[in-house]
Amino acid sequence: MSFHFADRIKRAPESFLSELFSVSNNPSIISFAGGLPSTSLIDTEGIAQATRQVMEEDARIALQYTTTDGYLPLREYIADRYRTRLGLPATAEEIQIVNGSQQCLDLFAKIFLNTGDHVGMERPGYLGAIEAFSLYEPVIDTVPLDDDGPDLAKFEQFVRTSNAKFFYGIPNSQNPSGRTYSQEKRKAIADILRKSDTVFYEDDAFGELFFDSKPRPPVKKYLPEKCVISGSFSKIIAPGMRIGWIYAPPEILAPFNVVKQAADLHSNFLCQKILHRYLTTHDLDEHIRRITRVYGGKCRLMCDLLNDQLPQVSHTTPEGGMFLMATLPPGISSRRVFDEGVKKKVAVLPGMPFYTDGGGEDTIRLNFSYPDEEMIKTGISRLAGVIKGLVHQQ
Amino acid sequence: MSFHFADRIKRAPESFLSELFSVSNNPSIISFAGGLPSTSLIDTEGIAQATRQVMEEDARIALQYTTTDGYLPLREYIADRYRTRLGLPATAEEIQIVNGSQQCLDLFAKIFLNTGDHVGMERPGYLGAIEAFSLYEPVIDTVPLDDDGPDLAKFEQFVRTSNAKFFYGIPNSQNPSGRTYSQEKRKAIADILRKSDTVFYEDDAFGELFFDSKPRPPVKKYLPEKCVISGSFSKIIAPGMRIGWIYAPPEILAPFNVVKQAADLHSNFLCQKILHRYLTTHDLDEHIRRITRVYGGKCRLMCDLLNDQLPQVSHTTPEGGMFLMATLPPGISSRRVFDEGVKKKVAVLPGMPFYTDGGGEDTIRLNFSYPDEEMIKTGISRLAGVIKGLVHQQ
Repeated sequence: MSFHFADRIKRAPESFLSELFSVSNNPSIISFAGGLPSTSLIDTEGIAQATRQVMEEDARIALQYTTTDGYLPLREYIADRYRTRLGLPATAEEIQIVNGSQQCLDLFAKIFLNTGDHVGMERPGYLGAIEAFSLYEPVIDTVPLDDDGPDLAKFEQFVRTSNAKFFYGIPNSQNPSGRTYSQEKRKAIADILRKSDTVFYEDDAFGELFFDSKPRPPVKKYLPEKCVISGSFSKIIAPGMRIGWIYAPPEILAPFNVVKQAADLHSNFLCQKILHRYLTTHDLDEHIRRITRVYGGKCRLMCDLLNDQLPQVSHTTPEGGMFLMATLPPGISSRRVFDEGVKKKVAVLPGMPFYTDGGGEDTIRLNFSYPDEEMIKTGISRLAGVIKGLVHQQ
Repeated sequence: MSFHFADRIKRAPESFLSELFSVSNNPSIISFAGGLPSTSLIDTEGIAQATRQVMEEDARIALQYTTTDGYLPLREYIADRYRTRLGLPATAEEIQIVNGSQQCLDLFAKIFLNTGDHVGMERPGYLGAIEAFSLYEPVIDTVPLDDDGPDLAKFEQFVRTSNAKFFYGIPNSQNPSGRTYSQEKRKAIADILRKSDTVFYEDDAFGELFFDSKPRPPVKKYLPEKCVISGSFSKIIAPGMRIGWIYAPPEILAPFNVVKQAADLHSNFLCQKILHRYLTTHDLDEHIRRITRVYGGKCRLMCDLLNDQLPQVSHTTPEGGMFLMATLPPGISSRRVFDEGVKKKVAVLPGMPFYTDGGGEDTIRLNFSYPDEEMIKTGISRLAGVIKGLVHQQ
């Protein structure tokens, strides 16, 4: 049988993520290629306790259908955290629950993009966003991401010439680069966008994961009416529950709610209840400090090992998050490093899929949140062997 | 602020579902307007037990990311049930887990529909499907639904002239009508489609809910290579977990998997594990018999009361499912019945939104699964008062 699929399917970029999962599932391979939080840092006891309480006190409600916007007390908790932690005047009416922040990418593109519309992204940009947006067949414009945020001259040119519906960025510990925007660049971006019709989509998956535990001011602080933030419990509590949210002006949430309802009626209610119970009976800040202490240590270890063993490889030095990006010596291709690495039982993620307009062949993304310290030591040593071997062959 | 949304948003039909939820949430109103399974029939104890076991034995895995296709043992369970219950040669490779069968509607439309493509539906047709499909801006063709299934002459004409990507139907206890296709019509539909390029999308949300507990042969049995079935645990176990599935040929699952990953990476893993544990430690057939005994009784009660108190109202007589459809006396509008009903504390669902091409003003959908027997008695008595009052005013 052959089927006549929609054009958007033919144009979808080939996904690396499935290939990654199969590598990640091979226990003999040390993988820096994935994007998982540390399994050992999931507070299974705390979540089990919260789950027990919900099942004992509230099971009939939690297992029935609910409203599309999500569990109100959970939305209130999220809004309250924006108020106290970041000084943003959030209310529950501006919060909609989704299935992890990946669903935000899909639904946001769905409400904004006609075929051929322009959207902006960082270069390199987040692969999950590229995959979600591409299905709506936009023109993706990219703005180079420097160490302190987007190149401002290029960003201004993009805004002036593209008439884009939105710019999608990750100001905190960006995926894949691990870079964080400076405060000056956040303000400058807000100033440039203020006079335009372009919305800023601020993906804040990693904002809670700064190693110094200090929040950075979101772009939304400087551009409240034209900025949406997406957030997620995946990196700070548990990804398997698939609960994230969007924080957006009511004018955007109205159509967003329509497409969310058409997409799956509402997000898993049981897990919304469990999360709310967990959050109101446990110290989230203390839990996050535990995570960032560990991630900070792993990141420093990986950077030190790279500096020691691969001085010819340059890399970003993240302030938080789960990833860093490395640039290979001249003439060494990341695809070769991937292929040779798998043979030597170490997996890295070649950078090309993060470059929608080509390039990135000399870059790799390395994840430091999932592997433990021993795996990082062994894995970087294997990687050093692979890269030195390829340099030697030149 | 005004935002420039995509054209698909401007064309989305105004949703009744949110309005319904607000009516459903008013405890003084007896609602036949919703579509909820009976809360008291959710096996909260069994689910709590399964949840406890998963959290004790498997929490770290269940709370981490997983693959897009879903938990393999759950997919194997679903495939096995197709084999034993319906004699379909299903394998786990043909099953993909989604967030309730509503997500199938969205993702299936996404892989098949270009703007302006044709899709077919029953008339009246399921509102959730109309809402999901409309966002891909197709032409929706409708085929009248008779008591024993679609009008075959019209169906044949539709297939011959529309070149539709797919026809979407609910052969078992259709929503909104409560009608079930005869075996002859299932075969005839398969015969008509076999020579065409049109896929049959068989929504089987209610196939387990026949009051006689006997399965009907799915259309897929007669058209295996060109038919997909969607199913859901929402009606037989619990809707709040949002776990459903699609059963489809591999050629369709490949792009389906791509758009599922872009939509939300994967469905809630914790609830996939809980459901699998529940299904393998409890007697699902016995649980379903308990549900269908209750629903069968409620349906008969509602039909008897309508016959007694509103002989001027005709209605369908379902063999299963959760809904029946009634036709009002000449000149009585369902919108008036809704408005007057809410005043008298009884809510019904006007039929118009189920008719994409207009019509249905004299029809209402009544749900019998959610209200208990006392509510059905009181509610139908109130409804009889409302309709008699409107007839009297004529």
